[in-house]
Amino acid sequence: MNAITSAPAAQTVHVPLGERAYDILIGPGLIARAGAEIASRLKGRKAAIITDENVAPLYLDALVASLDAAGIASAAVVLPAGEKTKSFEHLMTACDKVLEARVERNGCVIALGGGVIGDLSGFAAGIVRRGVRFVQVPTSLLAQVDSSVGGKTGINSRHGKNLIGVFHQPDLVLADTDVLNSLSEREFRAGYAEVAKYGLIDKPDFFAWLEANWKAVFTGGAARIEAIATSCQAKADVVVADERENGQRALLNLGHTFGHALEAATAYDSRRLVHGEGVSIGMVLAHEFSARMNLASPDDARRVERHLQAVGLPTRMAEIPGELPPAEVLMDAIAQDKKVKGGKLTFILTRGIGQSFVADDVPASEVISFLREKHP
Amino acid sequence: MNAITSAPAAQTVHVPLGERAYDILIGPGLIARAGAEIASRLKGRKAAIITDENVAPLYLDALVASLDAAGIASAAVVLPAGEKTKSFEHLMTACDKVLEARVERNGCVIALGGGVIGDLSGFAAGIVRRGVRFVQVPTSLLAQVDSSVGGKTGINSRHGKNLIGVFHQPDLVLADTDVLNSLSEREFRAGYAEVAKYGLIDKPDFFAWLEANWKAVFTGGAARIEAIATSCQAKADVVVADERENGQRALLNLGHTFGHALEAATAYDSRRLVHGEGVSIGMVLAHEFSARMNLASPDDARRVERHLQAVGLPTRMAEIPGELPPAEVLMDAIAQDKKVKGGKLTFILTRGIGQSFVADDVPASEVISFLREKHP
Repeated sequence: MNAITSAPAAQTVHVPLGERAYDILIGPGLIARAGAEIASRLKGRKAAIITDENVAPLYLDALVASLDAAGIASAAVVLPAGEKTKSFEHLMTACDKVLEARVERNGCVIALGGGVIGDLSGFAAGIVRRGVRFVQVPTSLLAQVDSSVGGKTGINSRHGKNLIGVFHQPDLVLADTDVLNSLSEREFRAGYAEVAKYGLIDKPDFFAWLEANWKAVFTGGAARIEAIATSCQAKADVVVADERENGQRALLNLGHTFGHALEAATAYDSRRLVHGEGVSIGMVLAHEFSARMNLASPDDARRVERHLQAVGLPTRMAEIPGELPPAEVLMDAIAQDKKVKGGKLTFILTRGIGQSFVADDVPASEVISFLREKHP
Repeated sequence: MNAITSAPAAQTVHVPLGERAYDILIGPGLIARAGAEIASRLKGRKAAIITDENVAPLYLDALVASLDAAGIASAAVVLPAGEKTKSFEHLMTACDKVLEARVERNGCVIALGGGVIGDLSGFAAGIVRRGVRFVQVPTSLLAQVDSSVGGKTGINSRHGKNLIGVFHQPDLVLADTDVLNSLSEREFRAGYAEVAKYGLIDKPDFFAWLEANWKAVFTGGAARIEAIATSCQAKADVVVADERENGQRALLNLGHTFGHALEAATAYDSRRLVHGEGVSIGMVLAHEFSARMNLASPDDARRVERHLQAVGLPTRMAEIPGELPPAEVLMDAIAQDKKVKGGKLTFILTRGIGQSFVADDVPASEVISFLREKHP
């Protein structure tokens, strides 16, 4: 971990993916600089901005002005906010706007928003003209540290989340840390669950640093930039090692198998549970399940829970408002998750803080017994 | 050109695209052998068949029986026949069927049909779970020699044809030459235009062979297999050199810029003009335009026209039934074509039979004068 200085200087994380290599810039004031940063990297001078009704009033004018100043003509489409926007219907609207704006292969799609907008826009960028350039301007902490990096794009199907999409790497990610000040505490905390996840996967020192510095990360400034840059670097390292998720990239799903099941069980109702909260509970469950399988010490699970509780994240299924379906239904949601191969359950388990691994032969019977204990 | 024997033995064309390498099998009886060929190459034992209302009654049962016999469970979706099927609506239906059939990443989508079904199915295979395996069983000559090879997939937009899609290579192509016997003469001829195209691009000997042997190709047997295999090999060579169409792959568009404009001008009404017919007229126009630009001899254009006329293909705009819009409207369609970069017109021109090249600086003024002459 680098020493943290008080001046919040921008950081750059380079993602070395050969001809698909790109930079992630992390720091204040990046929306105002977006036009210049894009113009210096991409040849095209046409852009289609895809954003949502919550984000557009806050940042769309500033982004358009920045593009104008750099000689980039843009057109924008403002979609409804929320997970339901990840549909074929809105994908079609987005693609149509990109074509209407006459964005050619050197032109770009700019995602201005959180994970939903990023996933949908990246998918549109990946399929219009079989691929145009793509710039992410993530406006949530979750999007800055997770979904904007790595090239996974997609929409939901009635069969499940993110089941339809492409791998399409961005050409540039602009993580403007100023915009995080407009997030609610709950949204920021939800994104923080993914920050903590990187420590739990394979960076025990980062997890310890977060335990000591999380308040500064929440406050903003250099510690926040450092936490985001470390997270992006961690994700980039995994993505570079396994771009198309054939193996180790699955580690990024730590906490997500349980988390997705809980999201499904609450019908993706964000009033009850948002993604990061599901991941928080899921990470505690993954550590507890690992302890139950005698892979890790129960102390580690307790340490994880203590930290997530300290920042204000839920760590127990009982904290989710409203009724949860029985363990059998949660199990069914897990079995339907896409990380099932040939009928066996693949889970991310751990041998301790920062010692996660991919287990691809976890018996379903153990999982269901565990769930019954946790949610009688 | 290999000597042609009378026994119609199957041929294999290997497409060496590294980890995306695949085989194209060309010969009789391949639908009956589909299950065994797929089972020997792919791990998954689940398949979703996408086909259309014209093809399903002829070959679906035989394909399903062949898969069954090889232990591959399949589900089928039968879509309407015709270009309009390349839409978001039908893409969604296709994706839904693939998910419903629980096809995982090792399972496959099988396209049973012509170019429309191949393009749509390949797109679905490319985006469900961010990519599942894909097998082409092309049932038209056009699909066997062109669209089933090379990995271009897509649907149409109101802004133009094939503007939305992905590159997704098949894992296997089964070109059953028996099924071509059920094509109408007109359909077979339309596909033949693309066969002739490979000669005109860079295989003058193949073009001369076609001039001498086209009747045998139309009749069937070894000459047909030879013509299809040579065409597939030609396309594979171009695709391997330029998988994602950054340069030389554009040669495959010989005759297509004019051809697409004519298709658009006839509103894709197959009663007036089908794709291969547009390409036939377009190839003659491309040779005539090249002669007008003093790049090639007018004799070559006449020779091309003579052969295409001999097989019964249209070679003149005046042969298209009904009124054509004025030259300016055709020009507009050309300018909207996706092969426009930074405002300049990219055309495939030629220096003679089998000497085509990519010209990326063709003045629009020359094209419009030429069109006015040809279509006063």
